[in-house]
Amino acid sequence: MTNNPSQTSAITVGQTKIVPETAQEAIQQVVMANRILGNEGLLDALGHVSVRNPENPGTFFQARSISPFEVTHSDILEIDLDGNIVSKTTVTPYGERFIHGSILKARPEMNAVFHGHFTAVIPFSITNIPIRPITHVGSFLFEGVPVYDEYEPGDGMLIKTRKEGERIARHIGHHRVHLLRGHGCDIVAENLPKLVASAIYLRENATIQWQIVLSGKEATYLSPEEAKSAMETAIFGVSPIDRMWRYWVARVKRNMPDMKDWKLG
Amino acid sequence: MTNNPSQTSAITVGQTKIVPETAQEAIQQVVMANRILGNEGLLDALGHVSVRNPENPGTFFQARSISPFEVTHSDILEIDLDGNIVSKTTVTPYGERFIHGSILKARPEMNAVFHGHFTAVIPFSITNIPIRPITHVGSFLFEGVPVYDEYEPGDGMLIKTRKEGERIARHIGHHRVHLLRGHGCDIVAENLPKLVASAIYLRENATIQWQIVLSGKEATYLSPEEAKSAMETAIFGVSPIDRMWRYWVARVKRNMPDMKDWKLG
Amino acid sequence: MTNNPSQTSAITVGQTKIVPETAQEAIQQVVMANRILGNEGLLDALGHVSVRNPENPGTFFQARSISPFEVTHSDILEIDLDGNIVSKTTVTPYGERFIHGSILKARPEMNAVFHGHFTAVIPFSITNIPIRPITHVGSFLFEGVPVYDEYEPGDGMLIKTRKEGERIARHIGHHRVHLLRGHGCDIVAENLPKLVASAIYLRENATIQWQIVLSGKEATYLSPEEAKSAMETAIFGVSPIDRMWRYWVARVKRNMPDMKDWKLG
Amino acid sequence: MTNNPSQTSAITVGQTKIVPETAQEAIQQVVMANRILGNEGLLDALGHVSVRNPENPGTFFQARSISPFEVTHSDILEIDLDGNIVSKTTVTPYGERFIHGSILKARPEMNAVFHGHFTAVIPFSITNIPIRPITHVGSFLFEGVPVYDEYEPGDGMLIKTRKEGERIARHIGHHRVHLLRGHGCDIVAENLPKLVASAIYLRENATIQWQIVLSGKEATYLSPEEAKSAMETAIFGVSPIDRMWRYWVARVKRNMPDMKDWKLG
Repeated sequence: MTNNPSQTSAITVGQTKIVPETAQEAIQQVVMANRILGNEGLLDALGHVSVRNPENPGTFFQARSISPFEVTHSDILEIDLDGNIVSKTTVTPYGERFIHGSILKARPEMNAVFHGHFTAVIPFSITNIPIRPITHVGSFLFEGVPVYDEYEPGDGMLIKTRKEGERIARHIGHHRVHLLRGHGCDIVAENLPKLVASAIYLRENATIQWQIVLSGKEATYLSPEEAKSAMETAIFGVSPIDRMWRYWVARVKRNMPDMKDWKLG
Repeated sequence: MTNNPSQTSAITVGQTKIVPETAQEAIQQVVMANRILGNEGLLDALGHVSVRNPENPGTFFQARSISPFEVTHSDILEIDLDGNIVSKTTVTPYGERFIHGSILKARPEMNAVFHGHFTAVIPFSITNIPIRPITHVGSFLFEGVPVYDEYEPGDGMLIKTRKEGERIARHIGHHRVHLLRGHGCDIVAENLPKLVASAIYLRENATIQWQIVLSGKEATYLSPEEAKSAMETAIFGVSPIDRMWRYWVARVKRNMPDMKDWKLG
Repeated sequence: MTNNPSQTSAITVGQTKIVPETAQEAIQQVVMANRILGNEGLLDALGHVSVRNPENPGTFFQARSISPFEVTHSDILEIDLDGNIVSKTTVTPYGERFIHGSILKARPEMNAVFHGHFTAVIPFSITNIPIRPITHVGSFLFEGVPVYDEYEPGDGMLIKTRKEGERIARHIGHHRVHLLRGHGCDIVAENLPKLVASAIYLRENATIQWQIVLSGKEATYLSPEEAKSAMETAIFGVSPIDRMWRYWVARVKRNMPDMKDWKLG
Repeated sequence: MTNNPSQTSAITVGQTKIVPETAQEAIQQVVMANRILGNEGLLDALGHVSVRNPENPGTFFQARSISPFEVTHSDILEIDLDGNIVSKTTVTPYGERFIHGSILKARPEMNAVFHGHFTAVIPFSITNIPIRPITHVGSFLFEGVPVYDEYEPGDGMLIKTRKEGERIARHIGHHRVHLLRGHGCDIVAENLPKLVASAIYLRENATIQWQIVLSGKEATYLSPEEAKSAMETAIFGVSPIDRMWRYWVARVKRNMPDMKDWKLG
């Protein structure tokens, strides 16, 4: 881990550090990401989120088997990319942690993974309708959203082993999002703020697109050029990411009093 | 009632006792189930939930005629399976308590019953569209959801007598859920956490399936093999049930200050 | 006004007095009805509710021009059935108070009127699709819901005069509910608890029925016999009305701290 | 700026001053407008609102780059109509401030501008279905809602320059609302209370109209005469605007404790 001041100033916008530099900062950030995803209704009791350890790219941080709504610092486990628990503990990890490790292993440029089941994406996972970008905030979906359907018989449609995790990582490939048929979605991003933005705006895009599907009307989607440009400026640009993350944090602090003193960087 | 420590450890996960062992524990648990169902919007002023008495399989616990949102320990009545009030009290019971007693009598392996009217199931109760499992969390619906339509004329579409309760019990048969035409649904489960999970994910499954109905699109539902496997691991497995119940309890404690000291086991 | 103890015991269920006996009690009850309608999302800044004066059937109580969400005792005006303000005050009344006076004049058996614009009813007001009872809680709609379309040109689709109020009263006739084309609905009931129940379950019935409309599927509606029986027992019966009213009051007390000491009777 | 008492009494209804007379009052009002738009779900982290400076028609007030949900007095910047920051500060302004300045320059009779992305309008922005007034509260849309589609390639579908702002101002022309294809909408009004009403009832009108679109049914829209009359009395009349603004303020004060002492005039 390096402590490069110029890099720090580049990634610190407003009052928020977007990219954690230490294990401790990553743990703080993933606690907040859990709370945001619970508070915004992206995760209920099920589903999970992870962040790569900035001090060791071969491990990641994720809560033990507990709802994201309730996660605190003491619930965070360190896990290696094969799904082995590094933390000295006897608490139960998430059974589907292999999704996270396998994707982080296959995508060294990415540092954060989401797995969840919010309802807006489900219809697209069981019909042959591809998700496409509708607005600038859905632009990051422009390279397509494939649907995984290679479940291991008998595993209850869950991803319970390293082998299945690797299959998931191969399937998501270079995409930011894929769906799991009759189950939910996986999302990967460079950092937790972009990951949360991706989850929130995937839901919004899917919700609106489904209305278009129901209407049977022709619609104008973003062109690849528009989408690429919008992704870089309108959603993953430094300024919108900073503004969004601070907004979601402010909402957690308002709704969850035990988080009111949370800070990072 | 036995107090078998090894069985206790098997059913106590995390900090939660899933299966109550004493009448007192069952009463505590059914108070919380009422609050969860109110807090999650599954019940409003109407509808009710019950749990079998672990100390006497011939009686069950249920609130007096009051909204689930408001139930406290002192509102809980003991009722026999024929609908007679066992508790010494003059307060008014639910008029439809016969649903609960009759189902518990016909299903000795089950210990908890829900009756309610959340809107997501209603369209399926008045059209000829069968509810089918869409995702792993709806897997428990795989044996089908029949629709009851044998109301007693003049009883206002309510189940007001033992005779009607027995008709209900015959109709639900070996299923976990049935609908009542133009009215709502009954759900039965082994315990209250599984019952609440069934209500929440029935709503979710029905909500998503209705979108598929509206779209007129072909969709892939869970195969019976997938559904059976998913039911056992992804929703009624020890770990998801424990995580879900603790999540719903945490939400009640956040929203309903008078419940913040609630605990079981 | 009579103070008949036996009648009082007949109309007091649980801890709630359903039918106010004095002007003071009616004022208390209409304050709570305003708050309930605001809290449950049936009224926003616009729309209003009234109750007949039990001490003088020729006047009614209604808030001054203020959102129902904010109404307190000091905002309540006494108004005669022609829309004249009886209270000695200079505050502004609702411009559409003529709806209330005219309906109360034409329906001596009724004592409470609602006028509002919740979105679920609007599609039925601008298409030729009649609202029909879908479930037992929508049973009270069984005599039909006509659509008013006799606006006075230049009055902005509002009911601003006694003459227009009388037109409204003639149109609603013997019905409990009618719609106003491109505007909203009026509801009349024997008392405020039944009125609030009618508003809440009209919204629910319209919401579900619209889903049936969208699906294009055949559906089974309540037969007139079923509906009449269900209206008398399942929604307007003493027990459900009492339970519902106490539930809505409990929710107001939880969400609106300034109402926590409210009581009636 | 004049301080004409008779005019003041004309524009002050109930306890609210609708039209600010000083820069300080305009700043107070735009802080509240930000909070209202956040609290009512019209804006999330993105989108913005502005008000013309009553003491200098060549400048306007708007928050720095921060979510409307969080805005306080110290976040408000003074900006000229070309988008130059007048306030002595180094904080970051909104990148799309050119929308506001250009519209205020082209519309001297208007004093407040909204730019946002609430989902209800998006389907209308990507299909060829014109928004039309459905109810009296949507009457202000009667002159039509054109759809802008003249984005500058490479600007990510954002309005990032004065040149693009001028294109936006030309496109909205004399309308109160236009949509931006695959992006959102701009709204302009005489003052902030009318602007907020326009945003809230545009959402409501679009939501209902979309249901009509989905149904494929014929529907009766407001005639131009009805709409004009309804706009003047039912939504932009002094009494409804006053009642609505006080309602939204009351909701902010209930949900956002740091705003409970806010007052204007």
